[in-house]
Amino acid sequence: MRPITAIGFDADDTLWQNEQYYRLTEEHFRTLLGEFAEGEHISARLLEAEKRNLSYYGFGIKGFTLSMIETAIEITEGEIPARIIGEILDIGRELLRHPVERLPHVEETLQALNGQYLLVLITKGDLFDQERKLAQSGLGDYFDAVEIVSEKSATTYRRVFSGLADGPERAAMVGNSLKSDIVPAIAAGAYGVFVPHALTWVLEHVEPPTEAPRFRQIDHLGELIGVLDAITAA
Amino acid sequence: MRPITAIGFDADDTLWQNEQYYRLTEEHFRTLLGEFAEGEHISARLLEAEKRNLSYYGFGIKGFTLSMIETAIEITEGEIPARIIGEILDIGRELLRHPVERLPHVEETLQALNGQYLLVLITKGDLFDQERKLAQSGLGDYFDAVEIVSEKSATTYRRVFSGLADGPERAAMVGNSLKSDIVPAIAAGAYGVFVPHALTWVLEHVEPPTEAPRFRQIDHLGELIGVLDAITAA
Repeated sequence: MRPITAIGFDADDTLWQNEQYYRLTEEHFRTLLGEFAEGEHISARLLEAEKRNLSYYGFGIKGFTLSMIETAIEITEGEIPARIIGEILDIGRELLRHPVERLPHVEETLQALNGQYLLVLITKGDLFDQERKLAQSGLGDYFDAVEIVSEKSATTYRRVFSGLADGPERAAMVGNSLKSDIVPAIAAGAYGVFVPHALTWVLEHVEPPTEAPRFRQIDHLGELIGVLDAITAA
Repeated sequence: MRPITAIGFDADDTLWQNEQYYRLTEEHFRTLLGEFAEGEHISARLLEAEKRNLSYYGFGIKGFTLSMIETAIEITEGEIPARIIGEILDIGRELLRHPVERLPHVEETLQALNGQYLLVLITKGDLFDQERKLAQSGLGDYFDAVEIVSEKSATTYRRVFSGLADGPERAAMVGNSLKSDIVPAIAAGAYGVFVPHALTWVLEHVEPPTEAPRFRQIDHLGELIGVLDAITAA
């Protein structure tokens, strides 16, 4: 019996660049507020607003834009000119149109795995925005299923891998976020294949579960097939 | 062979109140801008912004909030005080917390149909917000599947009813929006059971397909079982 029959892939910063566009937008936001506060202070207040709003907005660019506006009002104690808030709306909309740049080795790997394993894209964020990126990536046809979820917990992975495949025990989850992709997938009983990305949102940082027998780490997606082969051979 | 084996249900204003909370928020928005423009003009400009932003934001409260902010800046030609924009953020967040009030006959009907048909909730909007409402409605357990989609087209209904059940020809879609629930479901080959709601968003208005053999109309969900029985008996 093959030990793994299904592979889940995170999308943002696993299949394509994402965080870099948020960083550029945040840089732009800091510039817009440059006359009111120091850049570091602006970023810290923005992160506080994002955390505070997570239970209202969930993940994604629209919530990020609303948090930027809130931060701008707070930092300036209501003195920010509406014109600048209009520019924040603009940079939020630009972020929603950012180009989709695939990461190295992604397409060749998906192509090789397609047909060998059940491939599932498992991502969180704005439904509408994630569908746009998947369509633009040209990678949609490699996946047997797409699950856009509001939260990536062990329960999520159990539900997805049990519903579509042979359960989490016979699945691997591949992603750049230890907190969302790796730790909960391993907790659900799956393999967790960590592909670090140089830029990862601070709210996604946790310690790598290096002691877990089902934890693996690779440098880029080109190394995934080797890891899967080693699990099968073991 | 039973003619129908699966039933799709829209959520907002089919299972629970929704539009009335948007209307209250819009009233509040008009009051906030009361010193700058007439209420009717504010609503017209807001609707224009919502239409214009649909391709960026999709459906849902976060996009609605961003469109309110944009409208406030436009109408006041950038003169709106940031304090009022802060209040717009507040009313948007309140909207995201509105109570979930089930419509009459919904629970008894779902209870009766559960186990007799495959029941699928098919709704669009913010993933995060729709999941919150479903959880609070207490109706989640009656459904065999939940599909939160970015667009409700004939393709969507074909995909959902083919993937989960015996295809659109053996399915019925129940909802209050002719444009999103009824017309595309009938185009996909399903029955469309229209349950008008006194409040329906203007962007959802189209003519009822009264000539279509698979079009049905009921006054409230309590009449659904009678309609299904009549189709089965025919």
